[in-house]
This record gives sequence, structure tokens and C-alpha cells, in this order.
Amino acid sequence: MPYIDLNADLGEGFGIWQLGDDDAMLGIVTSANVACGFHAGEPAGLLRVCRAAAERGVRIGAQVGYRDLAGFGRRFIDVDPEDLVAEVVYQIGALQAIAQSCGSTVSYVKPHGALYNTIVTHRDQAAAVAEAVQMVDATLPVLGMTGSVFFQQATDLGLRTVAEAFADRAYRSDGQLVSRREHGAVLADAAAIAQRAVSMVASGKVTAVDGTQVPITMESICVHGDSPGAVQIATAVRDRLTAAGNEIRAFC
Amino acid sequence: MPYIDLNADLGEGFGIWQLGDDDAMLGIVTSANVACGFHAGEPAGLLRVCRAAAERGVRIGAQVGYRDLAGFGRRFIDVDPEDLVAEVVYQIGALQAIAQSCGSTVSYVKPHGALYNTIVTHRDQAAAVAEAVQMVDATLPVLGMTGSVFFQQATDLGLRTVAEAFADRAYRSDGQLVSRREHGAVLADAAAIAQRAVSMVASGKVTAVDGTQVPITMESICVHGDSPGAVQIATAVRDRLTAAGNEIRAFC
Amino acid sequence: MPYIDLNADLGEGFGIWQLGDDDAMLGIVTSANVACGFHAGEPAGLLRVCRAAAERGVRIGAQVGYRDLAGFGRRFIDVDPEDLVAEVVYQIGALQAIAQSCGSTVSYVKPHGALYNTIVTHRDQAAAVAEAVQMVDATLPVLGMTGSVFFQQATDLGLRTVAEAFADRAYRSDGQLVSRREHGAVLADAAAIAQRAVSMVASGKVTAVDGTQVPITMESICVHGDSPGAVQIATAVRDRLTAAGNEIRAFC
Amino acid sequence: MPYIDLNADLGEGFGIWQLGDDDAMLGIVTSANVACGFHAGEPAGLLRVCRAAAERGVRIGAQVGYRDLAGFGRRFIDVDPEDLVAEVVYQIGALQAIAQSCGSTVSYVKPHGALYNTIVTHRDQAAAVAEAVQMVDATLPVLGMTGSVFFQQATDLGLRTVAEAFADRAYRSDGQLVSRREHGAVLADAAAIAQRAVSMVASGKVTAVDGTQVPITMESICVHGDSPGAVQIATAVRDRLTAAGNEIRAFC
Repeated sequence: MPYIDLNADLGEGFGIWQLGDDDAMLGIVTSANVACGFHAGEPAGLLRVCRAAAERGVRIGAQVGYRDLAGFGRRFIDVDPEDLVAEVVYQIGALQAIAQSCGSTVSYVKPHGALYNTIVTHRDQAAAVAEAVQMVDATLPVLGMTGSVFFQQATDLGLRTVAEAFADRAYRSDGQLVSRREHGAVLADAAAIAQRAVSMVASGKVTAVDGTQVPITMESICVHGDSPGAVQIATAVRDRLTAAGNEIRAFC
Repeated sequence: MPYIDLNADLGEGFGIWQLGDDDAMLGIVTSANVACGFHAGEPAGLLRVCRAAAERGVRIGAQVGYRDLAGFGRRFIDVDPEDLVAEVVYQIGALQAIAQSCGSTVSYVKPHGALYNTIVTHRDQAAAVAEAVQMVDATLPVLGMTGSVFFQQATDLGLRTVAEAFADRAYRSDGQLVSRREHGAVLADAAAIAQRAVSMVASGKVTAVDGTQVPITMESICVHGDSPGAVQIATAVRDRLTAAGNEIRAFC
Repeated sequence: MPYIDLNADLGEGFGIWQLGDDDAMLGIVTSANVACGFHAGEPAGLLRVCRAAAERGVRIGAQVGYRDLAGFGRRFIDVDPEDLVAEVVYQIGALQAIAQSCGSTVSYVKPHGALYNTIVTHRDQAAAVAEAVQMVDATLPVLGMTGSVFFQQATDLGLRTVAEAFADRAYRSDGQLVSRREHGAVLADAAAIAQRAVSMVASGKVTAVDGTQVPITMESICVHGDSPGAVQIATAVRDRLTAAGNEIRAFC
Repeated sequence: MPYIDLNADLGEGFGIWQLGDDDAMLGIVTSANVACGFHAGEPAGLLRVCRAAAERGVRIGAQVGYRDLAGFGRRFIDVDPEDLVAEVVYQIGALQAIAQSCGSTVSYVKPHGALYNTIVTHRDQAAAVAEAVQMVDATLPVLGMTGSVFFQQATDLGLRTVAEAFADRAYRSDGQLVSRREHGAVLADAAAIAQRAVSMVASGKVTAVDGTQVPITMESICVHGDSPGAVQIATAVRDRLTAAGNEIRAFC
């Protein structure tokens, strides 16, 4: 029976402020990318989401980001790579203690937002993130984009890389994502997105914007949860994948 | 041969801002209370001080505090105990990852500043800190004041408590410290402070401000390092203790 | 024609995080207590809400609070009064520039959350807030609780004090609010709250929990906007007050 | 009698952390670029430095920066220009209230660190800073680099631009600074730097690294104060300029 992981970003509130419906998403995904306090997530909120994830058997990943609450980690910061190493180590460690105090553990690392996008191509920051993961625990897989400089660096350091695909994003014929700034970059129809996920998993290919079939590697599909519509889409993705005979299970 | 531990607060800069002479202090103390980022200490600075501590064989403790960079953790904050539990777990975990990436580990926990003072008497916050330590690692000792509510709570949870004494502070006849707001609360003469440390260790007693001899429990003496004069005092304390036949070694 | 002001807290999101329905509330209230960045509110969000307030003719007040995003300013912090003076000056000035760049101005100051509650009785912090307002602009009114130490201090410094009442809170027979920790402290029924507001304005009295009629001074009624239900309540309060022949207009 | 302004960055501590010798520098410079809390400077410290500046007749400028205490505003952040406008307005306003409560005022605006460097060439961020200054007060001069995109944008909006020169930095033949990453970019000898300042003011030219004489526009010379050596250099610059017959006075 074929299987696939579903991952989503969780724990992204801060104090009184909430973002997304963590409870609903924990019923859908198998891997929870939990914020670590730098772009979002204060400790008490992280403890609550890790406890809920542990109770429901959802794997916890450390979603590390730039130190930027005001920008939600979505703005590139030209951090010194040496500082970035320490910041990523710090974030993973903080979430490890939170997760372990709930009887779970951090099972993988996924960079967030602008850091995620930056290390697709930025050699020094990519190396810093990979080095930080290795320093904390060289057996921790990293979740990200196939073909990224980050994955090259992680592989060079002996880390396991886990590729994810995006069912709700348009792809270019070279396998990269169409920029969010371009029209049609993000799909909105739940049924179409779910169908696309099923097709991706079944064929190992995605239909690019120019109509070509592009081979795509993936062990996980990323779904979003920060709007009511997003929860509905994520549910549709899970339901259609299951109906098509796939097992939804964590990659680790 | 009698022995005693010397502890000091380290890693208390933030970014460009420095505080104290960490290098000098690492040559004096056997236990380094390293900040965890909430009252001071950004990750890269913490990594540097942990690396230096590891190289010099100095034990690393997690110096946990209130989330208050602007106040350096020196102002009471009426934090909800449930939030405080999570904040302490988070801080310890962050420093654990930093310390472990340097080949060392977090060997104990010491509360900082206003949190330290508060949990001498504040039952709910004391319980929160003790519970957090237990959640992270029930074998971690806590460093603090004999007779504090915090030590009672920690003992109730099965944690090892390590009492510290202050060679540069005046004591009341009930064994508590004279408030810093009172005249003569803090001693300044290096020779007198060093002599006092020797006497404390030899006799297990301290001379209170009213002249009475007060029994005092201690496994560690706290020295300060955030001024050039303080380094000189700490050096004198160490030298006189050694000259008096004491071994200076970590309590754990 | 009798008149009354309606005030509510606005601009209390931070970056990506939203709180309450500012747009809806700007259609209801005549005075907007806009956060100043210390307990909530990043500059771009503050600029948006001030612009909207200016367009709709709603007065802008500076809602000053403790520096505590993680706690939303709802936790007492034992700030040094000298520091608090500077923090309040800073916050008012920041919002003044924001408001003025929208063609409006800061018309009054209202403390937020734990600071509001603290200076009902805390002499030094109350004096600090009053002094800060006077330093910035001695003609700025302060909005708060009759009978508070803050109002005494503000009056001593020559500031105009504007009393507010709470239609959705239970009162004690001494004119103070029943603590939120007690059962029945907060009313939830929109019609009952609106009726209470009408009665307060008409009679200058409020029915305390023990049934006594307590005289109450007010130039403004505080309504809340941080939940869909709250908007409905605020609307009911406004509608009933208007139907009862009151003009809803800003106190300044 | 020819005259020149001397400016330096002040108020760049944060809470317990100090940076530079503000007192010494206030005896040397005529314009103090005071931090505004985003890259450094908590309100109480800003109030102290503004009070001291006011007492000593030193002009106060708002030194606006990226929101980045951990990086001291020295890291480029890809802030949305719309957000940057609001952040600069907020910072200027905050310092205006602080300065006015000391009987002084904000007389000009100078961007700090990475923001300063970025808007030499970054059109959108340069426009954002210029727009923000105009929104707060279109009569406020901006201090910066001749030939920068920022100055073009400021000029387009009708702002007065005040050019500064750096006596301790090497210049290229195109009038731009040699990058700090290159050898010889920063001069260290106090006498040489002071002589260079005198020569710049007398001739309106600076000797570039290739020996050519480059015309240079300036109304102010920037000196640094964040090390004991820097204070000595700044003193030498002031003394030599005075000895050469220049009056040291604020540009505004």
C-alpha cells in the first residue's frame, strides 16, 4: 500500500494571538511543523500544541525561523551564518525540551518562511542551518525542497533529506514553484488541489504551468491551516488520498 | 580535603552588548550559570561562552529568568505559573542544545534575578520552576537559597537542591540576606570578603549583622563578575579558599 | 440632549496576528484607545487603524501599557517608576507621530490591562503615568477609574480626568468592580448590558451586586471588541443609548 | 569664520547594557544621533541622554533603524516599504516626545547601520524613509551620504539633505567609501584622522585611496564614540578643527 506524509505549520500564535486552527489540523496531518519562538510561538502555546500532537500521535518537527516576530519570519534577514547556526541550535533545543516534557520528541527540522526560501539558493545560510541540525543531532531529518542548496549541504553533512511537494502551488517546468507574485501561483479550489495531490503521489509527476509533466520527488505533502478554507482543503487532500488507496503516515 | 564550588553568572550580554568579563571568570569558577536568552544572552554569545566553559572544564548551569531583556530579569513579573513552567522548560532546553553542541551539557538550573528572589517566598512560581526542572530532567540539581519555598517544592518533587552562600553579602540572624536596600548589605573589600568565604567554609557558620554566629548550609559560593572590581574579589575568594586548604571543585 | 462617549481598545494585533474587529468597532465607538506597541500594535497596524479612525471621525487615545508582548500587558511588572515615566512618554510620542501623519492627533491617554489595574492603588506607578502625560502634554486628558490613586495623582498635576464606566461588569457597593475571578463578574447578555448602560447614563447610578444603588461618575462607557459577540454587545449598547435619547459623542 | 558640525551616535545602550561613553561624546559633538529603541535604546536611557544633550546644548537627531536589537540594526532586513514608513514615523515620534519632555526637540533624522547603507542604493526603502520623515515633519533635515538614492528621494520630497563626511574612512575615487571588508578601509591613528578632517574642511576635497583628490560635500563630520580610543580620536578631530580656525557648530 503506497503511503505519504502530510505536514503543516502549527503553534504559530504568540501569547494572546492565535493563528490557524491547530486542533483541526492535528486531525489531518501526520507531521506538525511546530514554531520555536523566533518567528512565532511562545512557550506555553508550544507546550499545548506539543501535548495535543503527542496525544494524537502526530510527529513533531522543529520549524526554525529568523528572529522576527514583527515580520513573522517572512522577511529575509542578512544574518551572519555563525549567528544563524547558534539560533537554529537554540530553537531546536528549546522545542526538544518542550516536546520531551510531553512524552514526545522532535523528529525532524523544517525551516520557516523567508529562511526556507532563502536557503534554496543562499549557500552560507543553507550551510549554517544544516550545520546546526548536525550539531544538535545528526540523525534528525530535514524537510524541504528537492534541488535546494540546503538539501545539498545537508546531504554533504550526512543528514537525511525529506522532500515535500505542494499540492496547492503551480510548478514551473524545471520543478521549481511559480513565484507567489505571479498570477495563478496558488490554487484555491479544494477538489482540484486534492485531485492534484492524488495525481502527484500516483504518478510521481506534476503538471507544470506550461502543461509538461515534471518528475517530482516527495515523501510529504505540505498543507496549510491558517484559514478556515485551508482546513477544508487539507481535509479534502487527506480524504482523497485515502480514498485513492494511500496510507497517510509520518515519514519518520 | 574539604571542597567547595564557586559559581558565577555568565553569558549575560546580548548581541553587541557585553556584560562582565566571562573569560576572566571562567578561570575562577567551577560552575557557570549561563543565561538562556530571556533576561540576557543571544544564541551566538551563549554558544561562545559554553564552548569556552567546555574547554576549561567549567560546569554549565541554566540560569533561567523572566522574559524581560529591558529589565534584565530584575523586575518581578506576575507570570501565570502555567506559562512560567513552559518558559523554564524552553530556556533549559535551548541551553541544553547549545551546551551539547559544544560537547558539554547542562548540569544544573539556577533561577536569575527577580525570579530567584520571588521564589524564595512565592509558592506558585516556586512550584512552577521546580515542576519545569522535573519535566526536563528530574536528575538536574537546582542551585539556590536554603530555606526557600523553592527548595521545599524542589525537594517535594525529588530534585536535588544545592545551597549557595554569598561571601559578599550581610546576613541576618535568621540566616536570610540583608536587603540590598539597607546600608551595609553588600561588602566591597576583597580581602574581607575572601576571609569571610574561608571562615564560612571552615566553620559552617556566618557572622550575622548583629554579631551572632548563624549556621549556614552551602555546597557553593556565589561570586560576581560584572565589574573589574568583582573579578578581583572573585580571584581573592578563590585564592584564599585554596590557600586555606580547600579544593575548588564543581558540586556535580 | 444628554450625551455619552463610547470607548474601546483597538489596534491590538501585532504583525500577522489580528485581535478583534477594528473596522466594526470604529463604526460603534467615538473614542479609540489605540495600542502603542508595548503590549500590542506594530507601527504599520497602528498607522492603518489611526487612518481609519481619522477617516471616520473617531478620536484617538494612546493606550499605554507595560512592555510585554508575550503577556499582552496583562501581567503586573514591578517596573521602576523612573523607567515607567520614560516608557509612557515614548509610547505617547510614537502614537502622536502616527496619528498626526494621518491628519489626526492623540486626544487622550488610557492605561492598558495590568497597568490600568495596578495604578488604581499603586502610588508610585500611578504617579509615573501621570507625570509622563504631563511631560508630553499637560492638556491631554486621562481616561480611567474614578476613585483611583491614578486619578488623584493626575488631578494633583492638573490633568483632566475622564471617568469611564463598564456596562458589562458587576459593581460592588463601594463603586469598585467585582474581580474577574469571582463568579458573575462579567455580564454576557447583550440586551441586559445595553439596558444597564442606558440606566447608568439616565440615573447616574449602577445597581451593585448586593442590590444597592451606587452613584457612579462617567463621561464614557467602555465597550469591548475582541470577539464577534463583543461587537454585537457594543452595537446593542450604542443602539439602546441612542434610542433612549442620548447623543453618542467623544468626550473631547 | 568657517564652521562645521560634528555628529555621533549616542543612546545606544539597552537596559543594563551600555555602549560607548555618551557623557564624553556630548562634550565633543554638536549633533547627537540618538537611537530610537528599534536597534538600541530603551526609553529611560533615551530620556537620560536627551536630558544631558539638552543641558549641554547639543542638538538631538532621531537615529532610526531596523527593528533588530539582537543584530543592533546592522543586518539588512527585507522590510516591506509600507511597514518601514510606519516604523520610521513611530521611532521619530517616540524620540520627539522624549526630547520635548527634556525641553529640547528632534532637529533632524539620520538612518542607522544597515538601513543607512541599504538606502544608499535601495530605491523602495529609501523612498520609505524619506516619506516617513515628510509625514512627521517636512522641515526636518536628513543626515546622510551625498549621492545616495536616499538623498535623491528626500530632495524630491522637498526635504533638506545634510551631507556628512567620515574622517576615519578611506574613500574611493568616485567619492564613495571603501568597504569595511577591504584592508585599510578604517583609519586608526588619531592625529592622521584629525589632520584629514582639517584638510577635508579646508579644501572641500578628500584624498582617495588611489591618490586622486575627490571633491566632497559636507556640512557635518561623523565621529564614533563606542570605544575609549574613539573618544580620543573624536577629541583630536574637534581640537584640530578648532585650532585650524573652524567653528564647531550644529548645522541646524
